[in-house]
Amino acid sequence: MTLTLADVRGAHARIKDYIHRTPVMTSRTLNEKAGAQLFFKCENLQKVGAFKARGATNAVLSLSDEEAKPGVVTHSSGNHAAALARAAKLRNIPAYIVMPSNSPQAKQASVRRYGAEIIFCEPTQAARESTAQSVIERTGAAFIHPYNNLRVMAGQGTAALELLEEIPDLDDILCPVGGGGLLSGVSVAAHGINPNIRVFGVEPQGADDAARSLATGKIQPSTSPATIADGLRTALGEHTFAEIQRHVAGIVTVSEDEIIHSMRLMWEVLKIIVEPSGAVPYAALVDGQLNLAGRRVGIVISGGNLDLDTLPWMKS
Amino acid sequence: MTLTLADVRGAHARIKDYIHRTPVMTSRTLNEKAGAQLFFKCENLQKVGAFKARGATNAVLSLSDEEAKPGVVTHSSGNHAAALARAAKLRNIPAYIVMPSNSPQAKQASVRRYGAEIIFCEPTQAARESTAQSVIERTGAAFIHPYNNLRVMAGQGTAALELLEEIPDLDDILCPVGGGGLLSGVSVAAHGINPNIRVFGVEPQGADDAARSLATGKIQPSTSPATIADGLRTALGEHTFAEIQRHVAGIVTVSEDEIIHSMRLMWEVLKIIVEPSGAVPYAALVDGQLNLAGRRVGIVISGGNLDLDTLPWMKS
Repeated sequence: MTLTLADVRGAHARIKDYIHRTPVMTSRTLNEKAGAQLFFKCENLQKVGAFKARGATNAVLSLSDEEAKPGVVTHSSGNHAAALARAAKLRNIPAYIVMPSNSPQAKQASVRRYGAEIIFCEPTQAARESTAQSVIERTGAAFIHPYNNLRVMAGQGTAALELLEEIPDLDDILCPVGGGGLLSGVSVAAHGINPNIRVFGVEPQGADDAARSLATGKIQPSTSPATIADGLRTALGEHTFAEIQRHVAGIVTVSEDEIIHSMRLMWEVLKIIVEPSGAVPYAALVDGQLNLAGRRVGIVISGGNLDLDTLPWMKS
Repeated sequence: MTLTLADVRGAHARIKDYIHRTPVMTSRTLNEKAGAQLFFKCENLQKVGAFKARGATNAVLSLSDEEAKPGVVTHSSGNHAAALARAAKLRNIPAYIVMPSNSPQAKQASVRRYGAEIIFCEPTQAARESTAQSVIERTGAAFIHPYNNLRVMAGQGTAALELLEEIPDLDDILCPVGGGGLLSGVSVAAHGINPNIRVFGVEPQGADDAARSLATGKIQPSTSPATIADGLRTALGEHTFAEIQRHVAGIVTVSEDEIIHSMRLMWEVLKIIVEPSGAVPYAALVDGQLNLAGRRVGIVISGGNLDLDTLPWMKS
């Protein structure tokens, strides 16, 4: 089972009336710093504040009426949970979200706002999975994995479709990589449109499992990830890894200081709220880890959800 | 000398290749809170991070070659200074910016970035004016007032022109009011297009000189303004006041708490950086001071420049 450009195009036709066509921003200041032309695809301005709205909506709308009727379930405390809850509401079916009992109130609230039911579990991967399994057995709901699901991956790839429609002559695209849903969808879409586009994944040094996976040819677990980029702490899945192996030019890692510095710079110059994970791809340019001088570079800003009570550049 | 829609249209033709056509954002969440349909014109995403780029660019491009040659001068430590410096650079003429000696480094840097010359003065209104006067005498530069200048006002009005092109059927428009350059330009443009549109100015309770001016029919000074909205501390000028008297439906005042609450809500929901002054017009809706239930309301977000080291909702 491989993902194709046709899948991504199909996803876009399916979801486009239910998501924002997010803007592509440019900045002379950031271009001068990078010595390149940068085009920021602003998925922080997407519904639910993250690209996850794309994949979850595609997955839910792809279900047959019979499959959809009992509802959908996932385990996630992040943006996918809110995105799935919203997608289920669009289709008027139940959503069951398995969340660790220590999840922040804000994340619980954003799921409840869309009418989803929260099922709490112990904060371990095993408890999440077994709890989701018991929900499936009880309700018959369809499990929608946050990233290792071809329909989710196809949905995430629609961000690249829109970006390349607007800026067709890109040389490179930079994407954050956590579980790999965005990176796999984007790289399949971009390569399908133009095989010469190089797609790079960027991840924190403290959660460099994708770089290690690509280097060893085998999915490496993300053991004790240490990074502020909370969306990028997960390991790859078999579907996402397969596409990443096929299509990605390389994985670049960035330091925590580079992430925080980039995040602040994006806030100051682009005037938009970018969460730490969303700043990671641009961070690959700030210290010249990746030299893309003179090139036209698409950068996917993955999301803008974070706690505004304190910011990472402030001393606590 | 009155300002007309034709002036604003002329300004738009003159500047449109040199400014951003800023996006109009909407949010289901904020619509539901207000019980109205809100359309945010995002001038925080404008060049130099504020609508001031419009007026300054129009003023500079309106000068004859002979007038322009010696350069332009203003006294301002805020967004107009950076906007004028940028506009002068576009035309390759000198810009002289008179700034109080205690101006923040960040504001000095944003002016220097465009190659302007800074002339420091004592931090009093009298010193600003006399220093600007001496620069004019020495250089022959044209003085471009931050707001009390018909070309500047015409430029600011182009924000309404774009907003109404995109959303033609607005019932009301809310604008912040400090010196009145934005409010006068916007109200002239909006009324020229559709006399039924109501344009409201919104200002902080702690700097309510525009409300008092309109009530008394005479420009009231802004004595010891006390507000976090640093862009709105100035008094009206005779040109801006005349247009505001002619066109504005009313001035609404908002508290500091309402400003800060609105600012945070806009950051969280719209995912954009809004400076305190930019949150002021939306603040008129959060506690129902202005009841616009069921109406279609344009809201001009004036700017997004602020110090990110500390945020107003944080205890210092």
